[in-house]
Parts: sequence; structure tokens; C-alpha cells
Amino acid sequence: MAEDIYDVVVLGGGAGGAPAAIRAAQLKGRVAIIECENLGGQCMNKGCIPFGHMMVASNILRSLSLGKEMGLTFNGISKDYTILKKRQDELISFMREGVRGTLRKNGVEIFEGRGRIVEKGKLAVNGKIISYKNIILATGAQWMQPGFEGGDLAEVVNSDYLLNTEKIPKKALLFGRSPWLIEIAQFLNRFGSQAIIATQDETILSGETKTITSRLRKVIKNEGIVIKTKAEIVSVSKKRDGLHVDLSSKDGGETFVVDRIITLERGASLKDLGLKKINIKEDSQYLKVNNKMETGIEGVYAIGDLTEPQPSHYSHLAFQKGITAAENAMGKDAAINPRTFTRILFTQPEVACVGLTPKEAKNAGHDVVVGAAPFGMNPYGMILSEDEGIVEVVAEKKYGEILGVHFIGTAASEMVGQAVLAIQTEVTIDELSRVPFPHPTLSESLAEAAADALGKPIYLP
Amino acid sequence: MAEDIYDVVVLGGGAGGAPAAIRAAQLKGRVAIIECENLGGQCMNKGCIPFGHMMVASNILRSLSLGKEMGLTFNGISKDYTILKKRQDELISFMREGVRGTLRKNGVEIFEGRGRIVEKGKLAVNGKIISYKNIILATGAQWMQPGFEGGDLAEVVNSDYLLNTEKIPKKALLFGRSPWLIEIAQFLNRFGSQAIIATQDETILSGETKTITSRLRKVIKNEGIVIKTKAEIVSVSKKRDGLHVDLSSKDGGETFVVDRIITLERGASLKDLGLKKINIKEDSQYLKVNNKMETGIEGVYAIGDLTEPQPSHYSHLAFQKGITAAENAMGKDAAINPRTFTRILFTQPEVACVGLTPKEAKNAGHDVVVGAAPFGMNPYGMILSEDEGIVEVVAEKKYGEILGVHFIGTAASEMVGQAVLAIQTEVTIDELSRVPFPHPTLSESLAEAAADALGKPIYLP
Repeated sequence: MAEDIYDVVVLGGGAGGAPAAIRAAQLKGRVAIIECENLGGQCMNKGCIPFGHMMVASNILRSLSLGKEMGLTFNGISKDYTILKKRQDELISFMREGVRGTLRKNGVEIFEGRGRIVEKGKLAVNGKIISYKNIILATGAQWMQPGFEGGDLAEVVNSDYLLNTEKIPKKALLFGRSPWLIEIAQFLNRFGSQAIIATQDETILSGETKTITSRLRKVIKNEGIVIKTKAEIVSVSKKRDGLHVDLSSKDGGETFVVDRIITLERGASLKDLGLKKINIKEDSQYLKVNNKMETGIEGVYAIGDLTEPQPSHYSHLAFQKGITAAENAMGKDAAINPRTFTRILFTQPEVACVGLTPKEAKNAGHDVVVGAAPFGMNPYGMILSEDEGIVEVVAEKKYGEILGVHFIGTAASEMVGQAVLAIQTEVTIDELSRVPFPHPTLSESLAEAAADALGKPIYLP
Repeated sequence: MAEDIYDVVVLGGGAGGAPAAIRAAQLKGRVAIIECENLGGQCMNKGCIPFGHMMVASNILRSLSLGKEMGLTFNGISKDYTILKKRQDELISFMREGVRGTLRKNGVEIFEGRGRIVEKGKLAVNGKIISYKNIILATGAQWMQPGFEGGDLAEVVNSDYLLNTEKIPKKALLFGRSPWLIEIAQFLNRFGSQAIIATQDETILSGETKTITSRLRKVIKNEGIVIKTKAEIVSVSKKRDGLHVDLSSKDGGETFVVDRIITLERGASLKDLGLKKINIKEDSQYLKVNNKMETGIEGVYAIGDLTEPQPSHYSHLAFQKGITAAENAMGKDAAINPRTFTRILFTQPEVACVGLTPKEAKNAGHDVVVGAAPFGMNPYGMILSEDEGIVEVVAEKKYGEILGVHFIGTAASEMVGQAVLAIQTEVTIDELSRVPFPHPTLSESLAEAAADALGKPIYLP
């Protein structure tokens, strides 16, 4: 009997690992994937999908205010969190089985168990040793234990809590350094909870443009969500009336009394994988890889949250890295283009940004032109009352290279694809200004922002 | 005193004329625009904007069914058409003033009155004669008198009726050859009216793919809207219980009793413009122009609905033609690319198509590959219950040129911009399959459909 030798073994069946396995199999490799928890990983089971689902529900509630302006009045709205949760659990199971089916259809062998490297080219799983030529490490990230005093109390939870409870907390403090604090705050708020965002960063949207950040902050504040920046939890103690949180922030020291603290800090999952056997340190914060997903050790690739600090824990990045690693493991020469990586938020208004901010572009030495088109001046934007929406385009002056595009507003997450495509295929700002987007759409503002950068907008004052 | 000689006179201040005037002025021309009714034209005053507004309201009502699946229950929904109309009238006034302001800011002289060519290079308006070097004809289209017996009854109206009434009809028959019949039917239906679509075409969406057409038809039928194809009104008579409409259709002869017949037939506005003086026949159905918007008569350009049969009466086409005519009138060498022209509908699900259908592509002699990705298999599509959504990509086999992209589903009108950009900048199907669209979005299905056309989708079974 021939020895079990795989061309590619993928350790982790999440947003990066599953497509990596499929692509390697499409390239005629013999492929195995190993998952110790749930196929689909964090994104599908506990991240983008359930929280995307909650945001859709939350945004339906938001659309009622536009409806009211239009003569549609709704009385007696009831919100049943158990129905919402049941629907999303069903969706997730369905999607998970979809991933399993697609892996199988492509001929990928699935091992449901914990994989551990035992020596170079050999891995133990479910009591069996399997051999491989290439391994793709895709084990993602895991929750970090909070470092503050009282962080071990049962009322200090992470976002998984919202997926397991039957009832949302009455008052919650959301703590960490993640943009997803804002999504959760908006969801809780619309479902009747009182939310406090306590971000460790300088702003609620660290890394995005001033315009986008201030417009989102304004909406959130108007909804009654409290925002604390440069926040640190000094200590937490449990009292009769709830958790007492001593918080230091830009505004000084304050005490909040809440039901729950929801923290969102994650770090690379590197432990107990046997990485020492292939000379990888288990105490690294994240694994360093190049644009080909190579770790520097022959036949060892790494992708996904394992290779990125938390603000970049996006599954579309893991997906691209997965495809790239698989192609390279199968002898191709693929590389990711970090310029096309999108940061998105399913808040209302949505946020979707790709590439450099004007400040980053200047710091990188570019001669920069910037154009913007507010959705409040776009006909469809006026229909939708998109007072906070805008698109900003950042380009290099001489050759018109598009360096960054920043959206806030309805459908931003779908529109940003236009910018991703433009950056990937090196469309110039002049070409972008001439794209005949259909009317009436918000997308028209992208061409108008590009025309604004060139000094010849049609409908901007 | 110097004679008033304009570099460019634009006859008609609508979706094509206004941007034409602005672009000509940006190119340092002395420019006048002449409008006899309302700046903004049909689109802004009586077309895309008010009907887009109504469709947004109608789609908020539709989103309640998704809300219900998610545990959000609404009782006692009241619909006040007068509030809806008031809001949209205010929006339109605001937009109209916006157009006026932008024209002025760019130095365009505005004549509000009826313009008439009196001889080559001279035009009369408001009792004054003005001279021009170039003229851009942009007078659009106008309602046609129905040709059937009883077509002159007061209850036989066009879509303007819905903008002027305080109350929608209880039962309406929508007649013509226009895709907009479907938008109106859905709006009326959601606002409590009973709608019958009687299209003269073979299908409700003549010219679109079978998939898109059948998916839209299914949704409409399920909503209780009656559809009659290959329909002709034999005669209409007014009786005590309403209008009796004798209709012949694919299904044979039937009589419907309704409150109103809404017809949607428009033809080019060519009369009383003095076109004879410059050797243009006033009885032409549409003015023929080339891709540079030249009429064949020196210094005379024509754009917009004046130059297109009704299924192409889209304001974004008029806009592109306007910009092109203006640039050429000012000595540039511009041309429109008809391949990037989008057909969109704000139904729910939305429809947005650009380029060739597979059938058209084959008939044009292309070796065709087709790929498709249903939104029911897209994670965000599952969240949104996008059972009817799909994207289809049509490409040329050898070089991978993208020939057409066809969307049905939420945000189709915003997503289609990705396809427009791809076709404009000659992105290949392989490049399209590799666009790292953010997750979870419907746009991901565009890359997946492209990968499907290449035989290597990741998540399609």
C-alpha cells in the first residue's frame, strides 16, 4: 500500500484554509484539510456571518426612519432576539455544510480533529500520521485573556457571548482596539441595549480618514451611544447593581455601571501545533510571511489571521492569502497585492475603504491629489437621505494612479468593489472619472469624486 | 456692442443637455442652455427621480418580510401617499435648483423659454435672436397619443398621472413596451393597488437574458401582479363600474375592468424646433447620430432620448452623450462606448445589465464562455434571503474579453458599476475572477461567476 503523501495539507478550515485547499485540489494536488472545531472558522461561525446578519436586522430597523419621512408609519414593532439567533444558527449550519460539500466535491480529504506537526513533513491527526510536501498554516486567531484587574469575572465576556445568550445585556461596555466595537454597539443600541464604546485607540476608526471617522462618530453619538477614546480599564468589580468599571480615557477617569463588558482582543493561534519541530517560535505575536505567503521555511506557508494583527482580521484577506499560498505550494508564482485590501464595516452608514489615506499617501512620498463627492449632493443619495455619505478618492498627481478610495454610506461595501478593481487593474483617475455609472446610483459619486480630483466635476458646486 | 455669439448652444436642459453645457463651459466655451419647461428634464422631474423615490419607499415595505424572518414584527403599517409625494416634490425642486446653480457657477447662460432655429447658426428664444457656432439638440422625448380605440378617454393616462394625483388607482392596467411598466406595477401593488402589466413585447424584459427575465417574472407573479405579454389593447370603453379594456395577448382575448390605463409610450421631441431650417426632417422617429454625437450636419450634435428608441431612454446614456457632444463641439475628439451602457430597474430584486447577452454575443460571432453565480449560494445573499439573485458573466473565450454582465438582486444597480468599469478598461475575465472583493458582500459573486466561466469557481457546487 502506498504511503499517504499529500501535496498540500492545510491546517485550519476557515476563511483562508478552505479556499486554499480547494484551489490546491483544482491544481491537481492531493490535498487534506484539518479542522479541530468548525469548518468555516471564525468568520462563518462567530464573526462576519452572525454579526453581518445582526447588522442587517439592525439596519432594517434603521430604514424605518427613512420610511417615516416617506409617509410609512410603523406601530408596535416587536424584536425577538431568539428568532434572529435561530435564523442565523440555521444559516451558519447550512453554510458550514456548503463548505464541507465543496471541499469534498473538489476531492479534498477532510480530517476533523486536532492536527500537530510531529516532524518535518509529518503531521499527527486523529491518532494517524500523515505525510505532506507542503503545509499551509491557517489556524487563525483566538481570544486573549483580558489583562485588567477583574478581567476574569464571568461578566467580562467576548463577542461569542452574544451568540450564546438568549437575551442581550441592558447595558454593555465594549472594550478593545477593534473597529467591530462600533458594529456591536449599533446592534445593541437598536435592539434596546445601552452601549458604551471604550476604544484603546485615539479615534473610533483608527487608520481611516478624518472625514470618514468624524461622519461615523457623529451618527453614532446621535444614536445615543457613548464613545470613549484612548480608553483603558483600570479595574472592574462586581457589586449588587452590576459591574463597576473604572475607566480612564481622553476625558479623564470615570466609573460606569454595566451588565457586561464585551472585549474584542484576539491573538494568533500558534500554540500546541508542533511548530517548534519546524523551527517556528510559538511565542511570536504573528507569523511573518512575504507577499507569496512563504514563511521562509521550505514548503511551509502561512495565511489568514495567523499572519496579521487584529485590525486586519478580515476574511477576504485570508481568502486571497489562501488562494495565493495554494497556487505557490502547487508550483505557480502568485502574490497578493496589499493595495487592494478593503476595510469594511456593516454599520449604518456602512464604511468601506481601500488603499491609502491622503496622509498615508503623502507620508509615502506621493504627490497627491484628492477629490470628494458627498452623497448629499448625489440624486440617489438625496432620495435615501444620505446626509453622512461621501466618497473620497486619493490619486498620484502625475500619472493619475489611484492610491486609495474611501466610502461611507449605504451600499459602500458593494460599491468599494469598483475601487478594488480600479486599483488592481491600474485604472487611472481620468479613466475613473469617465466611467458611465448608471443613474440614479450612489456609484455616480465615485466618478464625480475622480472628476473633482481632476478639477472638473459636473454637478459639484 | 459685440454680437452675441455662443460657441455652444444646448437646446434642452435635461439629463443630457445640462452636463453638456457644463462640460462645454469647462472647456472655456461661451455657452447657453435653453429649457422651455423644467431644468433637469424628464429624468429629474418626471422619471428616474420621482419613480426611483417611489421604488425606495416600496422596497422599504418589501424589507419588512426579511425583518419578519429575523424576528422583527411590525403591526399597523400606514401608508400616506401625500407625504411621499410631498417629499419627492421637495427633493425635485431642490435638485432642479442645484442644476441651475451648477450651470450658473460654470458660467452657462440660461434661457427659460422655447428655442427655435430660425436659420443656420441662429436661434430665437424669448423674442431674441442668438447666434451660435455649434448646437447640441437635447430636447428629449414626449408622450405619444395612444393609438387604440378609446385612447382619448380621460382615464387613459401616462405615468405623469401618478405624480399629479393625491391617490393611487385601485386597479390599473399598465400598457406599452417599456421595462418601467414593472417598476410601476410593483410600486402600485405594494401601496395597495392591483396592477396588471400588459406589455407589447414577448417577455416582460425584452432584450435581457432568460435567467434574469424568468427570475423577475417569478417574483412579480408571486406578488400577485398579473402579466400579459404580446398584449394589444383592442378597445377601451367607459362603463359604470370602470374602464372596460378588451385586451388581446399571448393568452388570447380577455376583458379587464380597471380604474386607469397607464401607458408609457414616448417618441422623439422634434416638432416646432425649426429643424427644417437646418435640413433635419421633423418626422423622423429618432435622430441618427454616430458615436461622436454628430448628426452629419456641421456644428449640429444631438444627444439623449432624441437619439434613442424608448428602451434606451436612460439618463446616464444621455449624460455620456452630452459630455461627448460638448467635448467634440469644443474641438476635442471624444466618442461614447455603447458597450458600457447599463440597463437598470429599481424593482425588488433590482436588475442591472451591461453589454451583450450570451445569445447576442453568439450572434455577433463571438466564441462565448458564460459563468454564473447565484446569490443564494453567496453568504451575504443567504443573509439577505436573495433566493432570486444571480450574476451572469459573458466573455469571449480566447482573449477573455468581457462582453456582458447581468445582475438581478439587491444593490445590483451599485454593483453593476464594477462591470461597467471592467468593460470600459478592457479587464479580462481572468483578472475579474481575481478581484479581492470584500467579504461578506454580493459582489464576491461577480468574481465567482468569472471563475465559473473559467471552470474554476471556489464555492460553487
